[in-house]
Amino acid sequence: MNRHTNELKDKLMNKNSSILVGVGVHDAITAKLVEKQGFDFIWVSGLGVSSANGIPDASLLTFGDMLPNFSFISQAVDIPVIADCDNGFGDTANAVFTAVQIMKRTELAGICIEDNPYPKRNSLVDKFQRNLISAEEMSNKIYSIKEAVGDNLFVIARCESLIANESIDIAIEKAERYADAGADAVLIHSKDRSGAQVNQVSQLWKKNTPLVTVPTAFTNISYKELEQMGYQMAIYANQTLRATTRASMEALKLLKEQKFSELEASITPLDELFELSSLPYLKL
Amino acid sequence: MNRHTNELKDKLMNKNSSILVGVGVHDAITAKLVEKQGFDFIWVSGLGVSSANGIPDASLLTFGDMLPNFSFISQAVDIPVIADCDNGFGDTANAVFTAVQIMKRTELAGICIEDNPYPKRNSLVDKFQRNLISAEEMSNKIYSIKEAVGDNLFVIARCESLIANESIDIAIEKAERYADAGADAVLIHSKDRSGAQVNQVSQLWKKNTPLVTVPTAFTNISYKELEQMGYQMAIYANQTLRATTRASMEALKLLKEQKFSELEASITPLDELFELSSLPYLKL
Amino acid sequence: MNRHTNELKDKLMNKNSSILVGVGVHDAITAKLVEKQGFDFIWVSGLGVSSANGIPDASLLTFGDMLPNFSFISQAVDIPVIADCDNGFGDTANAVFTAVQIMKRTELAGICIEDNPYPKRNSLVDKFQRNLISAEEMSNKIYSIKEAVGDNLFVIARCESLIANESIDIAIEKAERYADAGADAVLIHSKDRSGAQVNQVSQLWKKNTPLVTVPTAFTNISYKELEQMGYQMAIYANQTLRATTRASMEALKLLKEQKFSELEASITPLDELFELSSLPYLKL
Amino acid sequence: MNRHTNELKDKLMNKNSSILVGVGVHDAITAKLVEKQGFDFIWVSGLGVSSANGIPDASLLTFGDMLPNFSFISQAVDIPVIADCDNGFGDTANAVFTAVQIMKRTELAGICIEDNPYPKRNSLVDKFQRNLISAEEMSNKIYSIKEAVGDNLFVIARCESLIANESIDIAIEKAERYADAGADAVLIHSKDRSGAQVNQVSQLWKKNTPLVTVPTAFTNISYKELEQMGYQMAIYANQTLRATTRASMEALKLLKEQKFSELEASITPLDELFELSSLPYLKL
Repeated sequence: MNRHTNELKDKLMNKNSSILVGVGVHDAITAKLVEKQGFDFIWVSGLGVSSANGIPDASLLTFGDMLPNFSFISQAVDIPVIADCDNGFGDTANAVFTAVQIMKRTELAGICIEDNPYPKRNSLVDKFQRNLISAEEMSNKIYSIKEAVGDNLFVIARCESLIANESIDIAIEKAERYADAGADAVLIHSKDRSGAQVNQVSQLWKKNTPLVTVPTAFTNISYKELEQMGYQMAIYANQTLRATTRASMEALKLLKEQKFSELEASITPLDELFELSSLPYLKL
Repeated sequence: MNRHTNELKDKLMNKNSSILVGVGVHDAITAKLVEKQGFDFIWVSGLGVSSANGIPDASLLTFGDMLPNFSFISQAVDIPVIADCDNGFGDTANAVFTAVQIMKRTELAGICIEDNPYPKRNSLVDKFQRNLISAEEMSNKIYSIKEAVGDNLFVIARCESLIANESIDIAIEKAERYADAGADAVLIHSKDRSGAQVNQVSQLWKKNTPLVTVPTAFTNISYKELEQMGYQMAIYANQTLRATTRASMEALKLLKEQKFSELEASITPLDELFELSSLPYLKL
Repeated sequence: MNRHTNELKDKLMNKNSSILVGVGVHDAITAKLVEKQGFDFIWVSGLGVSSANGIPDASLLTFGDMLPNFSFISQAVDIPVIADCDNGFGDTANAVFTAVQIMKRTELAGICIEDNPYPKRNSLVDKFQRNLISAEEMSNKIYSIKEAVGDNLFVIARCESLIANESIDIAIEKAERYADAGADAVLIHSKDRSGAQVNQVSQLWKKNTPLVTVPTAFTNISYKELEQMGYQMAIYANQTLRATTRASMEALKLLKEQKFSELEASITPLDELFELSSLPYLKL
Repeated sequence: MNRHTNELKDKLMNKNSSILVGVGVHDAITAKLVEKQGFDFIWVSGLGVSSANGIPDASLLTFGDMLPNFSFISQAVDIPVIADCDNGFGDTANAVFTAVQIMKRTELAGICIEDNPYPKRNSLVDKFQRNLISAEEMSNKIYSIKEAVGDNLFVIARCESLIANESIDIAIEKAERYADAGADAVLIHSKDRSGAQVNQVSQLWKKNTPLVTVPTAFTNISYKELEQMGYQMAIYANQTLRATTRASMEALKLLKEQKFSELEASITPLDELFELSSLPYLKL
């Protein structure tokens, strides 16, 4: 069993422990920076990895393409790493296969599986019509994954009901089924900017299974508030890639304008970069 | 023949054309931003790709690991992309094999091959002792690569003499041999902060083969000055990853301090990210 | 345009030319042997590549996993190589993305796309219930692929109607739509052991688009007979892996029984193996 | 720790146990057949994987290319799998990195590391001149690998002295140093067809570290004889690929001659192939 899988569970079982705050990354160096800044866990963002490769977040980059990223990111840090695996890259058989490959070929502590069908469309793009897989199929997917990986992988079941305009009651009902199917945590995704929805969800949640939230749309709620609502994990999924994109734009503008000194002053020195990419087990 | 390979050559043959300025990237999204900012070409940085994966720039990430990056980056833009291929990942046979794979499996316009032995050690890390491969072996490597790829790949021969504390005369002599062996351009690497060395080099260069420079150590020389010295290509190899690293640090600090509004205001909006990762040939 | 893509089309346009006979392979060395034996083209078998990796033929091995095989196999020979790409690894967007990747990252001459939904189940396994995608969706898939790749990739549209127990009329009607959508050839899959079905299909086919057949179930029909029926391409898709599997079993039995001389006499000498894996452009 | 790593060690520590006989494979399906035939372990042959991909065994296929094979092969069976890793794909740093990647990203029980320099040339090709790395460098490589992977990987140190025309005394002396450096087993490679050399080697071996042999050149010595000489492991490294190559040739000849019935009778039925590629943890 991955040490970090256990560690995650122990922390979440302890109802006195603070909310765990994780940050989404698209590469290993960003993961190292997240760890350095003292966050609790890493989220490998599907949107992040796709976008970094110049590819839309729409099941185009395959699991085989993403596996090296999962591996290098999970090797880079000493905190739990959870990978966004969409729907598991297909149906139940695909999801079980994916989970087993992750267990055997990476150091990930966990994965997140959602009830969107394959091929997925990013949840934050409005133009797409949403038809989720049935709660039965999703429950079976979660159950089958856990049957195959046991305690070796922490599995978050992600319910997209609210993204697909289903009611909160349906979202809760589905999420409960996913919890009963063995999910180690449940994430009911919301893009309600007011934060009211995420609050309601937590009030209606009666299961012991930990609740996870991704506050992309409602980032102004404090960790403490999320914790008080009852959330045990919060994932800031896409902020780092958005930060690096902006930074590249600005650096390239300085470079174009030949403001070399200004540029140098605003970027990490090379020596720091070399140190960031050193490996503890390797003498060079 | 890759359209961009031709395009590069045409521009360089035209002695009236301005110096071509390229920027190093570690992923496809950064390449897109470089293109948007109006630079002339992309440099896939070995240091960049390695560091982004949390791995030292020391021939640890293999060609097989880097190939998808080469491919996705070269697909992402419509300007020439040149990949830093160190020594070609081994001896002459390795380098020829590498070049042929790149020609057949990516849309790269060119590669850069240096006279460091395998496994390479980053040229900007001071602690390593340098023993270059002989000028004869390197010339044979360049000759053999060009024999295999013909005009389908633009090949920059990179001379590390000045990094290895050899004299400028030796550097010039070696670079001339590389030019004679068929290199499409020659890069005599220098880390002299004053820029005097890079100036001397250009004055001693009598061949028609275009000269390339990587002004990491002497970034305060303007494009015009480099051009007037006689350089036809300049590569700003590692600034983007240093910019994104700094940006991630700062964004993570804001996130840790829960300064959510400040963070949101300083990062690229999601919609812009979605647009950046759209593919022209794909309707979604 | 891939030289072999053109070559295939030219041969098929010439109605006087003989039926083209291709053989399915799972790796590059087998492809070389197929070429040596004088066959007309190579078929990269999805079943073959999956099985060789110990994985069921059920969309588990992803495109990212298969890409290196596509590349190495297409590099190994100088005859056209066509890859079995199932449904294109998802919906229309996936299929277009797949086709573009193949065009840019391999030397394949063509691909075959079928109207099975993702995830696919092997057509020759009886236990699965079949629900094909609609003719409209499939036509759109073929049209969109051709729009993206133009003449750079030969696209076979494979109709699974007869496998899914639809009538021959429906099969023909669908295949005609695929031809109209721009397919370069059409394959109406049949597992009727008598060969009657494959004969009927060809009699009902009125389009100019070449007909392809995969005589796995009806292998006793001669090339000439298939040609006379009107088929222009025949693919012996899975025989080589079945031959190598049997051979490995027998060799391992001899080895287990320590019949070393008998074993040596029945296997290819090492020198021949070395020669088979030499590369024309590489001196070693 | 990989269960099979332990299992290997336990068997080898028990001096009463019979010689362990392993067979080289180039893909997962062959590994399954080796297991079915009752052999003790699998050897992933570098020559085999390279040749199967149509590439010479000369450090051209990189570790990044081979990793998926290592993973799929090690997943396919329930006996120990040891991978031929040449020199570890470079110097000591490369070898340590390689070993750690294998430990974290595959289910291999062990690796074999030889004292050939990078890039390697196949030991059974006569034309190459051999210059081994020094015993000191090799010992350091073995020591550093074991320091990094501990008991999680079984490490065979392979001495190429006899291939490089060094004396048996030197071979023994070097192998002793490798054993002292922590190798779990030692392989002194020989291509003496008479088998006299391999006998002498075993008589001179005084260490407790188990001796391994690869009887490619002297296949007519029985397992019992090798065991009596003192060998604890024997590896039949390249026979399966040679068997499958021959079999493909013969099957293709039958196919070309349209001897369909004869062909069908000589190859594995499809159903058997489907069964061979089923996964125990996956219901389809």
